[in-house]
Parts: sequence; C-alpha cells; structure tokens
Amino acid sequence: MGDSSVIDPAAIISHKFPETTYTYNERDTALYALGVGACLRDALDDKELKYVYHQDGQQSIQVLPTFAALFSLGITSKIAQLPGMVYDPRLLLHGQQYIEIYKPLPSSGCIQNKVSVSGLHDKGKATILECEIVSYEKDTGELLCMNRSAVYLRGAGGFSKSSLPYSYSKYPSNQNLAFKIPKSQPFAVFEDCTQPSQALLYRLSGDYNPLHSDPMVAEIAGQSYHQMYLQRRSELD
Amino acid sequence: MGDSSVIDPAAIISHKFPETTYTYNERDTALYALGVGACLRDALDDKELKYVYHQDGQQSIQVLPTFAALFSLGITSKIAQLPGMVYDPRLLLHGQQYIEIYKPLPSSGCIQNKVSVSGLHDKGKATILECEIVSYEKDTGELLCMNRSAVYLRGAGGFSKSSLPYSYSKYPSNQNLAFKIPKSQPFAVFEDCTQPSQALLYRLSGDYNPLHSDPMVAEIAGQSYHQMYLQRRSELD
Repeated sequence: MGDSSVIDPAAIISHKFPETTYTYNERDTALYALGVGACLRDALDDKELKYVYHQDGQQSIQVLPTFAALFSLGITSKIAQLPGMVYDPRLLLHGQQYIEIYKPLPSSGCIQNKVSVSGLHDKGKATILECEIVSYEKDTGELLCMNRSAVYLRGAGGFSKSSLPYSYSKYPSNQNLAFKIPKSQPFAVFEDCTQPSQALLYRLSGDYNPLHSDPMVAEIAGQSYHQMYLQRRSELD
Repeated sequence: MGDSSVIDPAAIISHKFPETTYTYNERDTALYALGVGACLRDALDDKELKYVYHQDGQQSIQVLPTFAALFSLGITSKIAQLPGMVYDPRLLLHGQQYIEIYKPLPSSGCIQNKVSVSGLHDKGKATILECEIVSYEKDTGELLCMNRSAVYLRGAGGFSKSSLPYSYSKYPSNQNLAFKIPKSQPFAVFEDCTQPSQALLYRLSGDYNPLHSDPMVAEIAGQSYHQMYLQRRSELD
C-alpha cells in the first residue's frame, strides 16, 4: 500500500490551476436547499421556505451559506491531474471542508473560481493536500467566498525525513483556532434525521459520486470504511 | 360573473399556435421522479431507483411516462393569448390531462411541440377548451407523445343557443371510452402519502404556480375552492 506513490512538493505547490466558472440559477439554489432538508417537516415554515420560494419571485429567494461548497465541486478530479503526484485514488478521503463567506450569495450567478494549492503535509503513512478555491462574482469581480478542501491520501506519505516531516501552509497556522470545539456541554441539542431519498436528491446539486446513489458501491465502500475503522481502533488500543 | 366574457368559436378553432421546444437532461428526469415520490421510502428499491440513478451513467436512467405531461406546461399562458377569447383567468380550472405515449421518452432531449385547439364546448355556465400538444424528438422527428389539456372556464359559457349548444372536437368522440372506470371493486389497494415538501420539490419540474408553494395563495385558493364546493353541493341538493 502506497509503495508506488510519488509526492514531489516543489512541483505540487508551484502548480497553477486554470480558472474555472460555475453558473447557477434560482432553481439550483432551491434544489440545494431541499437537498439538505429545507421544509422537510413543514412547507409553511418561513425560516426554511425563504430558501426555496419567495412571493416576489424566485430571484428574491435566499441562498443557504453552505451553497458555497458547491463552488469547490470537481476539486478531486483536479487533484488527480496535479503534476508531481502519484497516489491510489481509492484511498483518498475528503478530510476537511473549510468555508469563509464574505457576502451573501446571489440567488443566481456566474462564479469565477481561482484555485491553488494551500497546504501539503507529510503525515508519514499519508499525505494531506489542501486546495483553496477563491470565488468571485464574474460580472462585478466581487469576492464572495473561499473554500479550502483538504484531502487525506492514505498510503502516499513518507516523502520527506520522518525526523523533520514536510509541511507547507499558504495561510496562517492559527486560522483554524477560532473554531475550537468548546469543552463545555452544548446549550441546546437538536436531533433530526434525513429522508431515505435525501442523498439521491442532494446529489443533483452536483456531487455525482456513486457512493451516494449506487447500492453496490455504497455497500463495498461501507465494508472498506468499516475495515479501516477496525484497523484504526486496533492501532489505538 | 362571466358577464364580460367573449367566446368566438371561429377565431379560436382556426388559431395557429407557433411551435415550441422543450429541452431537458438526465438531471431534470431524475428530479421529476423524486418530485413525484420515487425512492421516498427506500433508496435501494431498484423498481424506483432506475428512474433516478443508473450504474452505467445517467443517460441510462429510465423516464417516468408521466414526464410527458411537462411538455404541455405553459399551455395556460398560451390560452390566455388566444384571439377570440375574453374570460376571467381566476375562474380557470385545469379539468383534464389526457396523455398518449407512443415510445419511451429519452433520458434527455430536445422536444418539438405542435400545439392546436382540439375541442371547444359551450356548457352554459362555463366553456371547456381543449388543447392538444403533439411532441416529437427534434433531432429525429420521431413522434413521442400527445398531451391533451382541457381547461374549464367558469363563467365564460352561453355563447351559443342553449337548445343546441356549440361543441367541437378534433378527435373521435369515442376516444376516451377505453378509459372507462370499471364498476367492480379494485383488485388491490395501495395507500401512500406525500412528504410535506413534496410540492416544493415537484414545482422545480416547471409548475411554478404559487398555489403549490405560497402559503397565503394556497389558503385563499383553498377557501375559494371550498366555497365552490359548497355552491356545487347546494346546486345538487
């Protein structure tokens, strides 16, 4: 596992991705909101309905902030084409999705995405690769949001000295500190459950990974994740 | 009610509608299937999943036959522009949707629609107007399906002699006979219920009538339909 992996830090962090665009309309934003469960219990709840319908016309609907994550869709296929990297794509895990939002997203628009490598870390048995997608409204050039997607490449680590493992970050290392999980008990607890068809609806927003729709792929992946879980547990014991 | 209505049969039945096109893709067909409840209870049920996902790629998904009804969307606005007709649009009811399907619908395509008036009937207090939408695959010219939408225009009848009320049909009068409701008891009964957000999802397939999404419009319409129901009952008593 990972024997044939190649990680060339210089080639990776100096890579220039081409800019991409993402176009969406009010139907897409409403579909996204329904896909993550808006109005699932109550179609009259105006706190949720405002993301799906507006009496003044669909251009007045609000956009859920997490809609911004869609702008980073396709990053996995971009990573697959990065020069200076050979790894087993079956061992890739989406490790983190970090989002900064600078202004409310328009109900429709054409978005321009600037993509760059923002982090690369040798974790010995694995490599963590971070990519930043900075998104602008194409017409106005206004900065809207930033996604940072981290992928965990199992079996592709150990490309630097274990005594001084390679670690590169484009952003300040204390940036994530603001989001520390508090040690106190939560003030409130809300429990909810998704619908059986929720993943089938959500994927129409662009995440066509068969993991979320193909019963056979899901079963195989489930077994594989379970194996991984058991392995991690045995390592921790 | 209906005092100012005008129905000019000669102008109406001789009207030539311009051809229209309707373009859709696999995402639209999957969204439609989810909108009418596919996989609502079970995302693994392959009898329903085949309308939403296919392991060989989305171009292999099947299309629900009733997807054909979407090709007739917008007929109400076309009727509103018919020469020789003045009526109160608030009193319009969608009376019947008749569909003939000649071959399975493709998972994506560009559809060419030929629209014509196929029926006009003076019912005294109301007029029934029927429009036929015959749909072809644009690339091949192949005939796919036919929709016949009947609208019931309350308050717009009485434009002909009550002793010999006007009635025009482009199609044989026995065509609907094949669909007579049998008098026997059903062989099987299946009960189901829709989700609270079902109408909000379904409308993304193109039926943007606020009746299905706006709580206030729905309430007013509900009261109006209830009044109509009470009136019809009192007429029948």
